[in-house]
Amino acid sequence: MQGTEEPTSQGVAYTPTDRTVPTRSADRAAYDKELVHAILDEAYVCHLGFIRDGAPVVLPTLFGRVGETLYVHGSTGSRPLRMTGKADPGLPVCLTVTHVDALILARSAFHHSINYRSVVVHGTAYDVTDPQEKRTALDALVDHVVAGRSRDSRPADKKELAATAVIRLDLNEVSAKLRTGGVNDEPEDLALPHWAGVVPLRKGYDTPLGDPDLAPGTELPAYLADL
Amino acid sequence: MQGTEEPTSQGVAYTPTDRTVPTRSADRAAYDKELVHAILDEAYVCHLGFIRDGAPVVLPTLFGRVGETLYVHGSTGSRPLRMTGKADPGLPVCLTVTHVDALILARSAFHHSINYRSVVVHGTAYDVTDPQEKRTALDALVDHVVAGRSRDSRPADKKELAATAVIRLDLNEVSAKLRTGGVNDEPEDLALPHWAGVVPLRKGYDTPLGDPDLAPGTELPAYLADL
Repeated sequence: MQGTEEPTSQGVAYTPTDRTVPTRSADRAAYDKELVHAILDEAYVCHLGFIRDGAPVVLPTLFGRVGETLYVHGSTGSRPLRMTGKADPGLPVCLTVTHVDALILARSAFHHSINYRSVVVHGTAYDVTDPQEKRTALDALVDHVVAGRSRDSRPADKKELAATAVIRLDLNEVSAKLRTGGVNDEPEDLALPHWAGVVPLRKGYDTPLGDPDLAPGTELPAYLADL
Repeated sequence: MQGTEEPTSQGVAYTPTDRTVPTRSADRAAYDKELVHAILDEAYVCHLGFIRDGAPVVLPTLFGRVGETLYVHGSTGSRPLRMTGKADPGLPVCLTVTHVDALILARSAFHHSINYRSVVVHGTAYDVTDPQEKRTALDALVDHVVAGRSRDSRPADKKELAATAVIRLDLNEVSAKLRTGGVNDEPEDLALPHWAGVVPLRKGYDTPLGDPDLAPGTELPAYLADL
């Protein structure tokens, strides 16, 4: 099938569109797939935007990634998961992920900023109805919290599967945006007496706390000890 | 004027509306103003949702808070700041802030979760045209990055003020949502051999890095040394 593969889905970068080329700071935009995947995979939650009753709604939610597809799950009773089922052909969404890496303190108020990495995905979300894809998606959601965890937990049973709605969003119209580096003050401000510089944000984990009801002899798994 | 004050804006809690009562996990919703303010103030970025050409857009952006008003700023050329100027009467937005506090690893895939604190604000954003309010908003934006910083930096000059658009969003239709605590596995899963528990996320700061061009003798200010 190699001859019939679409260049877009096989390329190393997403094709920019009107929606994914920023009107400002276009030099901070990036379309490299590996970079986009890395930013997505490092995030625990995304912010999912959709339209309800003519107004925008932005909700934080867990997500998972399988190749070029993102999955979001939730109760079958929750918004927006009820809406994709109703909507035909799918629900227009915008899914955004952001990491704040550092505070940028400039001598001028105007040039205060943050170093960040974000990904914005535009597209249409569809209900996942295929049982095998649904299982794959749920594994990806658990593995997104801790890599490999889906193999070390009880898989969803029939009742849980029926109570869970999953929607898919393909990575087609996608951009990353990044700010890195230091302070960008105006040359005439450099002699001002205000301290200026970068305050990096530290991220990490505290010691895992075992559930009080752990089965006797249950040890902390290596994939958590290594965090 | 005490007798004429509106109870809503003076009360200790936001009044729930159809949009701010979740369809699921309603027990996790909260409307206490102090709690909402604390969640907002701890966040460096919000996710601002609006509608452009009929589709939802979610962008990460810095923000500031003055009492019951949030301010977002940007270049006068950026979206959505151009849109509020055009829109009459204002731009419908949804502004969301989320903190991830811990990973919840359950014995069952189904009960994997995170501990989080989020705030969702529904409303209409308006251009800030009053010069004094604009200055107050810009100070709030800088102080949101580091408290007190606006007094230790050069204020925006006329050119910078003209290049900066600010929009305001009042805190009226607001809710917080929180998950705290430990693992909620089913009783029949407790004996499973999988480790279960809470992995707290650690947040903090690394050592501030001074700009290479700092004026000689510029010391790290106390408000950064204390971070």
